[in-house]
Amino acid sequence: MNFNPELDELVVYEAGKPIELVVREFGISPSEIIKLGSNENPYGCSPKVSAAIAQNAKMASYYPDDSMFELKEGLAQKYHLAPSNIIIGSGSDQVIEFCIHAKCAKGNSRVLMAKTTFAMYEIYAKQVGAEIIKTPSHSHEILEFKQLYAQYQPDIVFLCLPNNPLGECLDKSDVFEFISQTHPDTLVIIDGAYQEFACFKDKSKAIAPKELLERFENVIYLGTFSKAYGLGGMRVGYGVAPEGIIKALHKVRPPFNIGVLSLLGAVEALKDEDFVQACIQNNAKEMIRYEGFAQKHNIAFIPSWTNFITYILNDTNPSTQISHWLLQRGVIVRDLRSYGINAVRITIGTQEQNTRVLALLEEFLQQKCNTF
Amino acid sequence: MNFNPELDELVVYEAGKPIELVVREFGISPSEIIKLGSNENPYGCSPKVSAAIAQNAKMASYYPDDSMFELKEGLAQKYHLAPSNIIIGSGSDQVIEFCIHAKCAKGNSRVLMAKTTFAMYEIYAKQVGAEIIKTPSHSHEILEFKQLYAQYQPDIVFLCLPNNPLGECLDKSDVFEFISQTHPDTLVIIDGAYQEFACFKDKSKAIAPKELLERFENVIYLGTFSKAYGLGGMRVGYGVAPEGIIKALHKVRPPFNIGVLSLLGAVEALKDEDFVQACIQNNAKEMIRYEGFAQKHNIAFIPSWTNFITYILNDTNPSTQISHWLLQRGVIVRDLRSYGINAVRITIGTQEQNTRVLALLEEFLQQKCNTF
Repeated sequence: MNFNPELDELVVYEAGKPIELVVREFGISPSEIIKLGSNENPYGCSPKVSAAIAQNAKMASYYPDDSMFELKEGLAQKYHLAPSNIIIGSGSDQVIEFCIHAKCAKGNSRVLMAKTTFAMYEIYAKQVGAEIIKTPSHSHEILEFKQLYAQYQPDIVFLCLPNNPLGECLDKSDVFEFISQTHPDTLVIIDGAYQEFACFKDKSKAIAPKELLERFENVIYLGTFSKAYGLGGMRVGYGVAPEGIIKALHKVRPPFNIGVLSLLGAVEALKDEDFVQACIQNNAKEMIRYEGFAQKHNIAFIPSWTNFITYILNDTNPSTQISHWLLQRGVIVRDLRSYGINAVRITIGTQEQNTRVLALLEEFLQQKCNTF
Repeated sequence: MNFNPELDELVVYEAGKPIELVVREFGISPSEIIKLGSNENPYGCSPKVSAAIAQNAKMASYYPDDSMFELKEGLAQKYHLAPSNIIIGSGSDQVIEFCIHAKCAKGNSRVLMAKTTFAMYEIYAKQVGAEIIKTPSHSHEILEFKQLYAQYQPDIVFLCLPNNPLGECLDKSDVFEFISQTHPDTLVIIDGAYQEFACFKDKSKAIAPKELLERFENVIYLGTFSKAYGLGGMRVGYGVAPEGIIKALHKVRPPFNIGVLSLLGAVEALKDEDFVQACIQNNAKEMIRYEGFAQKHNIAFIPSWTNFITYILNDTNPSTQISHWLLQRGVIVRDLRSYGINAVRITIGTQEQNTRVLALLEEFLQQKCNTF
């Protein structure tokens, strides 16, 4: 059986390790496992959300409201715009897929992104045979984006603000200046999966979807319920853009792409912003401990505007070795080897989780009798 | 902003009406609404499944196990084959999308299907610019498939067994004979979304994935948890095929395409086959009432191997009028006008629901003083 030749060289996305796998492979009890490899919310979701899901479990047999009326209304209120400016995806991930499929399937498309950024941009683009253009620097450098944009005139530009898996974030002023220089037929995708954390830390990084809509006709903003809102397992994200873009994306949206309890959970999550804000505050507090640990032990790290920190390792400490050592002790972190860098990405956990992880890292360093 | 020209003419899928819409538009209380427009299981899902979902609602914050180890194991046991023969989709719908994207994105592909069948075959194929070839007859006629196959040599053939939205089902012997005449590079997709109902009614329609695997190298069987298993709202379906096909489809599968509670619900659902069998038995019993009603009132209908019945209407009774009249009274059925036929598709409900629906239809007929 022959398939599209684009698929031959395609490398499949390597997902963060699930708890079940650690249970299966290392025989560790699920309650002992600390999962800090997928940037989930370590405080879970709002108790009001899980209660609503539990109470409505019997709805599981009904197809969801495919118009997603309530969730779009909720998001429209949150962002002060119209429901017709919103499309819902199975994670913001799926909205990325919609953009690629709607814009790039011509086969001679070009997509511009940072060298080290969310892996799915490249994977979706390669699936349709698009040419991938990456900045020379790992992280987002606006001058490199400008230069490559002028050189290649890409159909799509991805800006991950802040950037996963590194954690850095461009200033809003730089982003807006760059966008204002793009052609109206270039789709600029601002992936705001971690924007809630960036906004809290630093207003100069904050990007408001409404302002994007008012100023630009060629931008889509992506948001998610998987991170700050604590609903990674429910698969709900969204895109905010001018109506014309949303309408085109709806043509490649499969019906019922969001489950009935996922819709309901997301609607409830929007009603409990206090929970989200408390999580973000704790995240900032706990982040300082990881920064302090790194400084104390001479570990290089990337200042982060997210809910994770990336430690850059030296040659005597391969990221794969540290990740595996932690895994054997029930701690899941993300080895960034598959991104081509010797680094580990650690989700900022709860106070208790972080105490355990930092103690283990200390132990690892003592055994090795050196720093990272 | 320009998008792919294929999207210009694309008509979006018209989903069955949700309860929320009837509440919003007609002010009817949700508990009064009878939803028989989307072929959901009127008995809901197994109580064991909804209990498991409720108990695990707090898992909502965790990304699912992307290997889907447990669910694949469960399906492998059910069908007596290997987990490597299985891919999981967000509904079997998504597996259709995987097939189209993996096989058809060349732009000069051809897809063969019955004239009136599941709308998403055509929509997904058109999204990638494939040429659609349809049989002259509305329902599946194996001779027409053979003739068109020989004439066009399509890349993909869809067989919906039994067929949604009409209800008819080809015999297994005809299907196997047809497949044996196809080229090894043609992907034959057997959509078995309603197979559980067909198997129960008539063994000559039953298609076992294991037998397909043993006899053919170019077939994928699609199954779903949305119908007999009562999990329409959780979005879980699957494809069963030779390893080479499954491997190619995995390359276009997005990570985390199934939610954490959806995976868990599907695993639990497989453990309660008694519930499923009871639902299927009730379905057969209640189907007879709809057949009897049609015969009594001279309404043409298509004998059905599914959990729905399709009434073919005459010109004095447009399907849109009947559907709307029922909707105003809180009963949702499916107007097949968007499929180009004057017919309504009614999901077989519970005994109580059917009593109400048949009484309303009787009332409608008396008001009109004539038959359908």
